[in-house]
Amino acid sequence: MNRIGINKAVIGLSGGIDSAVSAFLAVKALGNKNVTCLLMPYRTSSEDSLSDALNAAEILKVKTRIIDISRSVDSVIESLGDKKISNVRKGNIMARIRMILLYDESAKNNALVIGTSNKTEILLGYSTIFGDSASAINPIGDLYKTQLRGLAAYLNVPGNIINKKPSADLWKGQTDEGELGFSYEEVDKYLFSKIDERKSDEYFKKEGYSDKFIKKINSLVIRSQFKRLPPLIAKISNRTVNIDFRYNRDWNT
Amino acid sequence: MNRIGINKAVIGLSGGIDSAVSAFLAVKALGNKNVTCLLMPYRTSSEDSLSDALNAAEILKVKTRIIDISRSVDSVIESLGDKKISNVRKGNIMARIRMILLYDESAKNNALVIGTSNKTEILLGYSTIFGDSASAINPIGDLYKTQLRGLAAYLNVPGNIINKKPSADLWKGQTDEGELGFSYEEVDKYLFSKIDERKSDEYFKKEGYSDKFIKKINSLVIRSQFKRLPPLIAKISNRTVNIDFRYNRDWNT
Repeated sequence: MNRIGINKAVIGLSGGIDSAVSAFLAVKALGNKNVTCLLMPYRTSSEDSLSDALNAAEILKVKTRIIDISRSVDSVIESLGDKKISNVRKGNIMARIRMILLYDESAKNNALVIGTSNKTEILLGYSTIFGDSASAINPIGDLYKTQLRGLAAYLNVPGNIINKKPSADLWKGQTDEGELGFSYEEVDKYLFSKIDERKSDEYFKKEGYSDKFIKKINSLVIRSQFKRLPPLIAKISNRTVNIDFRYNRDWNT
Repeated sequence: MNRIGINKAVIGLSGGIDSAVSAFLAVKALGNKNVTCLLMPYRTSSEDSLSDALNAAEILKVKTRIIDISRSVDSVIESLGDKKISNVRKGNIMARIRMILLYDESAKNNALVIGTSNKTEILLGYSTIFGDSASAINPIGDLYKTQLRGLAAYLNVPGNIINKKPSADLWKGQTDEGELGFSYEEVDKYLFSKIDERKSDEYFKKEGYSDKFIKKINSLVIRSQFKRLPPLIAKISNRTVNIDFRYNRDWNT
């Protein structure tokens, strides 16, 4: 951030552990005067989410703005003309409206949008592309959900934020582990061995992982690869963006 | 698309040449029954934009949906509570609301969002990140604006779409070349020589390019690099997404 001459940040604070850790790190790096937190409840969002987010912001002494997204989300849904849309589609709209608000604040105040996605959800694709996964820089994207808990405690994030059931809070009763069908402890242990430690198929068999579990997790990682990459451009020239072109550091500027 | 088992596409048709060429290519590749075009006017959008888009869709015999984005955009702006926002901020909100609608259609009908950004605008960063630059695959991202004109004529895209002044139509009187401060002919010639042909600084001096022009264009390319890349993740582990981790093709699935 020093290099590009921007010293301000904006973060969407949800009341959950991920965005809280990002905000605590941002304040450590930039100072509380340079961090703005947006709280963006929808009418069905849990009240605990908002009060936990406000509590975290108070501890950090950062500027907060509360923007209710209900009317914006409902206007988009009405414009679709569908009688009923699924929770997932509605959740995607909510996540993307929040992205719009964060990026507007970013443009208005020359502040970078700080990412709040952890390594587990990035690898599993458990996010809305161009929604909650959108950011300029992400300080926690290399930490699994279970690792974040340790860091959160070290940073003195309030205990009720650390210990609550992980949830995107996009609809009532939603929990990450309920939707995914396994616990973060289970999947993080597997992903860490598989990706960070490069353990062999043999190892996982010996450790007693079921074929079904392995196939399920691997398939989530593979099928969500598109969420981790920029749009694919059909290559037809000598030098194609993101395939064989990035600018050179010796460009005359 | 065959490989991932999706044969449907959705495209935002603006009435301009870029999205028209993408739509013509998509129909060639997938057939008109598999392509849906969304027309997403705002209340200040030019009427010619809509009628040109409808005309293109009629030629292609594709399904169209017209979704007016005025209320959605205005709801987002109202929620900001600012008395006045700049044209650029408003334009970004419009582009991102259109992204939301395209991705909702994508999720609803298992259709890929086809990109409509050309190489010139991708390189110059002349786009809204997570807005019009968002797509799953982009068939025209390796063609400069001036090259697109040739392809459009070959594909029999209507002449008035090819020949109109390029504009994002985000506000009245907006034209690309007015905003950028140079013509597509000028900048494409430079970018092609610089990037595709890897010509030297010497060459550009000999060809009579001014230092000022070179610095301006290079700076646009460099400063917009972030728009072409996924969010930057702080590396703290052995294998970090988009730095040294992508899944291996031999993963057990």
